[in-house]
Amino acid sequence: MFVAEGIKTVEELLGSHFRSESIYTTHPELLEGSAVEWNQITPSELRRMSSLKSPNRVLGVFHIPPPARIDLTNWVVVLDGVKDPGNLGTIIRLCDWFGITQLVCSRDMVDCYNAKVFQATMGSIARVNINYAELLRVLKESTHGIFGAFMEGQNVYEEPLPEAGILVMGNEAIGVSKEVEALLTKKIGIPQFGAKTTESLNVAMATAILLNEIRRTSETG
Amino acid sequence: MFVAEGIKTVEELLGSHFRSESIYTTHPELLEGSAVEWNQITPSELRRMSSLKSPNRVLGVFHIPPPARIDLTNWVVVLDGVKDPGNLGTIIRLCDWFGITQLVCSRDMVDCYNAKVFQATMGSIARVNINYAELLRVLKESTHGIFGAFMEGQNVYEEPLPEAGILVMGNEAIGVSKEVEALLTKKIGIPQFGAKTTESLNVAMATAILLNEIRRTSETG
Repeated sequence: MFVAEGIKTVEELLGSHFRSESIYTTHPELLEGSAVEWNQITPSELRRMSSLKSPNRVLGVFHIPPPARIDLTNWVVVLDGVKDPGNLGTIIRLCDWFGITQLVCSRDMVDCYNAKVFQATMGSIARVNINYAELLRVLKESTHGIFGAFMEGQNVYEEPLPEAGILVMGNEAIGVSKEVEALLTKKIGIPQFGAKTTESLNVAMATAILLNEIRRTSETG
Repeated sequence: MFVAEGIKTVEELLGSHFRSESIYTTHPELLEGSAVEWNQITPSELRRMSSLKSPNRVLGVFHIPPPARIDLTNWVVVLDGVKDPGNLGTIIRLCDWFGITQLVCSRDMVDCYNAKVFQATMGSIARVNINYAELLRVLKESTHGIFGAFMEGQNVYEEPLPEAGILVMGNEAIGVSKEVEALLTKKIGIPQFGAKTTESLNVAMATAILLNEIRRTSETG
């Protein structure tokens, strides 16, 4: 099970396939009209339960749903060792924005129901099917192109992207692992316009830009 | 003055127009070959001086340079009330990546030499001219188009973007202020492909995508 905080997130989960175990609130009127049962608690009880600096009136305990089978027929995002919980949460939110329903994480990655990740997703986690899996096995199953993000990759502006495929994003410090790299169809990169001394883009930023490129291709042809 | 931590960042600043006041290190061999004078300190002294959980061997005190005059002849990013230090730091880094040298912040915003902002910029701050200014005055001086990011803005994929202009990004919660909105040439937005219940994109993500759109236009025509 995991904990979700804030009325907006709890409401999104209640309206999704997630099953709630128990809901606690200091403001029952917020849950009026919803079919769920709640427990009224005091602000000091909420402070003890919450992992937030400013607890947000509603806290829900939900069951972690079993992930659905990975659907490889559309674009899939594969994360190879992304370590920062904020980056993972942001990437889940980006997948949701760009209509990517399949996210695959390597088994060494932080749990997506970790409080820090979960809060960064802003409820998007309910709409993205997240699997922790052996990446090599998943990549070998795909019949579509596998594109890995690399600093020195092919300029994505000049690269025709297909209607379906896999986008692989690597670890913050060391990038994509050698074993995964060996299975790539192509390395793609985002052109740099500033001084060449600039640090590489953060992995969440790069994911934002590459998902935008993938969707603009299918929109504008 | 402000504090910069880590050998990479300190070296970048030493190689830039920033003037150092004093440099402290637990590992003098890291600064061998650089012309700067340093003070050797113990790890426990560094821990007391550092604002990082894991202090990073080198710490420099630098003078805040006076900002250069705002140059409106190229693309300029204008931030209207962005509150989160991490978002500001990330946006500075994005400006640097995309070769945007002019960043203008509204006067209510967090100081860019704040430790949290500064660390998030990864040294990029040395290559972006940041002015805190009265936004209305700056916008009225521009002879180029002024584009504001809005959820309901014109689809940026279909919007021809000029070679120079101003991109306005608003506050995390309330967006662009009414006064600034009144001066916009056009509202632009990033198409959403997921469920319409999704939260808007985080302001740093949206900036990443819009700067990418601006640069891909000038690259690919």
